[in-house]
Amino acid sequence: MDGKTNRIRFLVSYDGTDYCGWQRQKHHKLTSVQAVLEEAISSLLNEPVSVSASGRTDTGVHAVGQVCHFDTNYPTEKLKNWDLAWALRHKLPPSIVVRKLEIAPPNFHATISAYKKTYRYYVYNSFRASPHWHRYSCWIRKELDLDHLRISTEYLMGKMDFKSLQSTGTTVTHTVREIYFARWWQQSPHLLIFEVTGSGFLKQMVRNIVGTQLMLEKKGFSPHMMKDILESKDRTQAGAPAPAAGLFLWKVYYPKLLKASD
Amino acid sequence: MDGKTNRIRFLVSYDGTDYCGWQRQKHHKLTSVQAVLEEAISSLLNEPVSVSASGRTDTGVHAVGQVCHFDTNYPTEKLKNWDLAWALRHKLPPSIVVRKLEIAPPNFHATISAYKKTYRYYVYNSFRASPHWHRYSCWIRKELDLDHLRISTEYLMGKMDFKSLQSTGTTVTHTVREIYFARWWQQSPHLLIFEVTGSGFLKQMVRNIVGTQLMLEKKGFSPHMMKDILESKDRTQAGAPAPAAGLFLWKVYYPKLLKASD
Repeated sequence: MDGKTNRIRFLVSYDGTDYCGWQRQKHHKLTSVQAVLEEAISSLLNEPVSVSASGRTDTGVHAVGQVCHFDTNYPTEKLKNWDLAWALRHKLPPSIVVRKLEIAPPNFHATISAYKKTYRYYVYNSFRASPHWHRYSCWIRKELDLDHLRISTEYLMGKMDFKSLQSTGTTVTHTVREIYFARWWQQSPHLLIFEVTGSGFLKQMVRNIVGTQLMLEKKGFSPHMMKDILESKDRTQAGAPAPAAGLFLWKVYYPKLLKASD
Repeated sequence: MDGKTNRIRFLVSYDGTDYCGWQRQKHHKLTSVQAVLEEAISSLLNEPVSVSASGRTDTGVHAVGQVCHFDTNYPTEKLKNWDLAWALRHKLPPSIVVRKLEIAPPNFHATISAYKKTYRYYVYNSFRASPHWHRYSCWIRKELDLDHLRISTEYLMGKMDFKSLQSTGTTVTHTVREIYFARWWQQSPHLLIFEVTGSGFLKQMVRNIVGTQLMLEKKGFSPHMMKDILESKDRTQAGAPAPAAGLFLWKVYYPKLLKASD
């Protein structure tokens, strides 16, 4: 905790459309969610703070339940009697909303303590695009076969090497992850949602999963080919990542003992 | 038809957030939906066109089923064999989507022929705002009493003088309109929707209806006061208009005989 007195944990939702992603990026024309949050919190507490998140989100990716922490010397009593999340509203743009904020145990770490994550991917499936879903979904013109997507999903569950679904440009060598549960469902006539919960995810893994499923369906390939793609451990066998706009970091899970309150 | 050979009717959806509304406005920093559509269609058909809509929408107001028409000299055969709505996609930003386009009878007029309209108003009702609903709803922090909204809605149905729910700055003197049906429902845990169908609407009438209902509920006034407000025919008795972001022009109705196809 670098000598600071309190570790604060918070829940944040954001519209990733106009950001370069969670993390600061040099030479990027857009600002990062992290930079905007750090500036707002630092300004409110009148003290420089560094914010850590459960994980990065890419350019254009959204979050409903991103979890973060930062350390502060702000007096404990004042922190306890102040709705900081509400106060932050005036320091943040409408695209970033801090939903819940609390004092966490000093051994809580947003990145390290996370043991499970849920993502959702939204597909707007209609003959014409929707201007109102443009920022929050991937548009597919041709009617999708939900059964096809459901069959390829079966092969994704379990503990295995997801190397073929990891995007290039990463230094991660241990590519075994466990997916506890994954499913596709039709939320409304034009909206299909994919939800996946796992121990952790490789770079662009969810977008690569969805991109590969959509590719198999579109090209008329068997959904059982997902098995071969996974076993090949070859990135080139999989499809291109699905667009960032459809992806939401939905929920991050932590051990109950690390919860100050619920 | 000013000597032009064909009248074209089309259905358009738009995200009104970044526009000054349907109509061109001098000295406004934002462009209008009308201007963008006219430029796109004129460019595609290589001929200047003027587009008329079923009615104007205010700055920030959205449309799911706005109906428009324009006249063109473009050859009939070519029009019949070309998916113009699809071709327009490349000329329009993602915030404006032409969904359906067809040759209409020469006596069809998007504004004059419309005999019924449906609007929807979206309220995001949650202790914390949502960055993903910010553009498409009005956020209310305190839990709304749906029954209260439903009772005040009862007084809105029927043919009556809606003078007290007309915004100032209009020259309309005949303020009698008929509301055929109106209702509030809960779409999902945090989303409440108001839908209203009527013969026509006065300036900002839907936003004034919702604004008045929300005001009565918030201040703890009786929902039956809606009756008094309507009978007073006094604008100052009603609430402020609800924010534009929550309003969608949902559907416009035309006589069947004026439909070229369906």
